Amino acid sequence: MTITVVGTGLIGGSMALSLKEKGFAHRIIGVDADRAHLEKALELGLIDEAMPLDQAVAASSVVILAIPVDALITVLPQVLDAVTEQVVVEVGSTKEQFLQKIKQHPRRGRLVATHPMAGTEYSGPEAAVHELFEGKCCVLCDTADSDADAVELVKRLYETLGMRVVYMDAVAHDLHAAYVSHISHITSFALALTVLEKEKEEAAIFELAGGGFASTVRLAKSSPDMWVPIFKQNRKNVLDVLHEHIHQLKRFEQVLTDGDYETFYELIQQSNAIRRILK
Amino acid sequence: MTITVVGTGLIGGSMALSLKEKGFAHRIIGVDADRAHLEKALELGLIDEAMPLDQAVAASSVVILAIPVDALITVLPQVLDAVTEQVVVEVGSTKEQFLQKIKQHPRRGRLVATHPMAGTEYSGPEAAVHELFEGKCCVLCDTADSDADAVELVKRLYETLGMRVVYMDAVAHDLHAAYVSHISHITSFALALTVLEKEKEEAAIFELAGGGFASTVRLAKSSPDMWVPIFKQNRKNVLDVLHEHIHQLKRFEQVLTDGDYETFYELIQQSNAIRRILK
Repeated sequence: MTITVVGTGLIGGSMALSLKEKGFAHRIIGVDADRAHLEKALELGLIDEAMPLDQAVAASSVVILAIPVDALITVLPQVLDAVTEQVVVEVGSTKEQFLQKIKQHPRRGRLVATHPMAGTEYSGPEAAVHELFEGKCCVLCDTADSDADAVELVKRLYETLGMRVVYMDAVAHDLHAAYVSHISHITSFALALTVLEKEKEEAAIFELAGGGFASTVRLAKSSPDMWVPIFKQNRKNVLDVLHEHIHQLKRFEQVLTDGDYETFYELIQQSNAIRRILK
Repeated sequence: MTITVVGTGLIGGSMALSLKEKGFAHRIIGVDADRAHLEKALELGLIDEAMPLDQAVAASSVVILAIPVDALITVLPQVLDAVTEQVVVEVGSTKEQFLQKIKQHPRRGRLVATHPMAGTEYSGPEAAVHELFEGKCCVLCDTADSDADAVELVKRLYETLGMRVVYMDAVAHDLHAAYVSHISHITSFALALTVLEKEKEEAAIFELAGGGFASTVRLAKSSPDMWVPIFKQNRKNVLDVLHEHIHQLKRFEQVLTDGDYETFYELIQQSNAIRRILK
């Protein structure tokens, strides 16, 4: 089938690559507001051809929207206005706000709201990789509002990518995403700033930065164009989690200030319980 | 040559494995206060035989101390008391405190203080892996206080493991280590507690936790037996960095509370500068 990918960056580009490779799509049309991205995506073979949005929608069975969530709020209604029988899949990191906005759209049923929980700290077509989604989890949100045939096709699409599909309502999704994804990014941004502002000897960081530092800070390379709209749309949940995280850090600060190493030990032991969750 | 490894866990065990493999050591003697660890290390072939500390020191050319830094403060003087011509290498994550303590020891010259910047969040003999050190950096501290032949041998030892050797004084080491290693661990511990205490739906975390979460939180699996002594010995530096990190997180909290997304964008852009350092 012919699939249009709107947004030919890390996620859209990687989906295009894998869907073609696995034979789910025989032809990929790319749409991107960024001309340079579109040309790069063609050059890298992520897409077979480039088209304006309306033409691309008309020529496809499936339209994947892989654009920042602020752009999604504008583009999604346009796409729904243009579809007839096509299936529309969006892959944004937040759900509640824009699903509320298009709830009454006459073509709402053609849309399946999804969040493939996969990515890297890089962006753009050059960041697209094979097997990005393999073995990861994809959330399908509010599927009762989507047509059954659309949900079924999208489920097959993600299973073709090697993903486990789970179902969740939009409100629960946004809350959980704040905990397992959004807060990690804020932590990394803040940690990067801590090091950059206080540690003036960059050569020393460069030499010493081992695996631990790299893994906690790598997310700080993430694009503000993608992330600011996410934090904006999930503001309340993110603030709740951030508030709690600062509270937890202050507990560590307090016990260290007090030299209360017994409590420090207990806090670490409690945090070790994360082993139950992270294998 | 015969090498004794005191502490047959992640670091000691991995060094033993690789030094044998690369032909730097022909025989490895293991010493460990934990009987079960010692037996496991024998069973896994990390060490060739087990001995009490004094006998092991007498039978070796090199003694590697790979034990928590609180134990090091006790064990290191004992080992220095026992050595004649042997080279003693310690691999602790902090330096200033115990180097101060043994500064006047008549055998101080036989000791080379080092910090191989490599590890994982796991501990014990089962955590030992091949190639742990390959391509990483090893800091040699205060080498002017060590005998030249000892420094030369230890440099060769780490280069055999595939490490880049850099030199630093103990005070600078402890400061930089607070930035590039110790703070990452506190962040992860606090993040794990944040999620564990507030996010009651563990099944949801388990399903959703993608790469970003895993990488920022994996260090929270680290052992308190290893880490509490590090924070204790590097308390002042860690407190400085922790204080700054909380300050940075509060800036993010403030701009999000204010809905000031322009400043939020700028903060993320500034943090992106970490790309210069983390390749």
